[in-house]
Amino acid sequence: MEGKYKVLEVKQSVFADNDRQAEELRKELKQKKVFLLNLMSSPGSGKTTALTRTIEALKDELRIGVMEADIDSEVDAETISGLGVKAVQLHTGGMCHLDADMTRQGLSGLEDGDVELAVLENVGNLVCPAEFDTGAVKNAMILSVPEGDDKPLKYPLMFSVCDVVLINKTDVLPYFDFDMDKCRENIALRNPDAKVIPICARTGEGMEDWYAWLKEEVKKWAE
Amino acid sequence: MEGKYKVLEVKQSVFADNDRQAEELRKELKQKKVFLLNLMSSPGSGKTTALTRTIEALKDELRIGVMEADIDSEVDAETISGLGVKAVQLHTGGMCHLDADMTRQGLSGLEDGDVELAVLENVGNLVCPAEFDTGAVKNAMILSVPEGDDKPLKYPLMFSVCDVVLINKTDVLPYFDFDMDKCRENIALRNPDAKVIPICARTGEGMEDWYAWLKEEVKKWAE
Repeated sequence: MEGKYKVLEVKQSVFADNDRQAEELRKELKQKKVFLLNLMSSPGSGKTTALTRTIEALKDELRIGVMEADIDSEVDAETISGLGVKAVQLHTGGMCHLDADMTRQGLSGLEDGDVELAVLENVGNLVCPAEFDTGAVKNAMILSVPEGDDKPLKYPLMFSVCDVVLINKTDVLPYFDFDMDKCRENIALRNPDAKVIPICARTGEGMEDWYAWLKEEVKKWAE
Repeated sequence: MEGKYKVLEVKQSVFADNDRQAEELRKELKQKKVFLLNLMSSPGSGKTTALTRTIEALKDELRIGVMEADIDSEVDAETISGLGVKAVQLHTGGMCHLDADMTRQGLSGLEDGDVELAVLENVGNLVCPAEFDTGAVKNAMILSVPEGDDKPLKYPLMFSVCDVVLINKTDVLPYFDFDMDKCRENIALRNPDAKVIPICARTGEGMEDWYAWLKEEVKKWAE
């Protein structure tokens, strides 16, 4: 797969004021009409599978670029670049999250002026990524059924910063003790405004609702 | 459940040299014959279920105490204290990991001299907890089948610091694209010495191997 995607070693930000950096990045993205989505989750919740399916569904309608952030490995950038969209692998050098300046370094690798939808697949972690504004226009997270319906109680900040929560792997609901109504209640306790969309990235169930939300947000941002 | 377990707000360590703090704590634990196990995993991999079953199996043989570390909530300490062992809930105040001094604060809440096996259920996170020596005698982690067999490639440090890897939720193997041999290979790439034990904490499958390992280690430590 050599040559199909870049690998960037992103450096920890030197800026103390990450919130200001994030606001500046968002302003620039607004001017350039680039919608940046920050996608977060635990390890193994299905971020890459959901993203793969989303790209397949939307790549003829939208110019998409993807930043795959990982401590190490290039597994995900290989997968994504195989779909024919721009991809860049960000190595965080052990860092557990991305901040706005690291995200900016990543966007430079995507030549961002040329994409309408830039997706940052953040490090798999429900704790630290929630603490850093990346400059994204919207935050999305994936909670998968096997992780349990109590996660909004245990990782409150993550749920409170997300605009949309995708509940993935609904195909295995019969095999897990997961109560969808209870999960919605737990999310609402942390964030009454969050949009909750049950999906199965593997089978495609529920994905249309997610695409509709995403397309609408990208369109609003470019107006 | 009031009064059944303490809640400690553990403070971030003031010690720059965590490794030295951890070594000192381990020495003290050796003198007191307290075996400290640091149990790590992603959110939702089944740490609390595995721990519950372990306690039920071993509580007549060993005096057990449990520290439940969470950003927030007391869900797990409630569960554990209901089993009739000492439990303390540690609130990390947003911190994504425990260091040796925070662990020491937690042990003080357990009145550690009175337990033979102290378990630290670390914050659900495959990144940051791996970077901090807690002073534990052994590190264990749980990887669950729904998370995928590629996780050792993506979270290398976590796998390299663990003495034992429990692969949980083997009952759902038929529903996931998870290759146990591939997973063992990926773990061996990171840590050829790690003991790998497939388990199902829900049904009890494979748990005897884990109990045997744990009892042997506790016994060796107290010699």
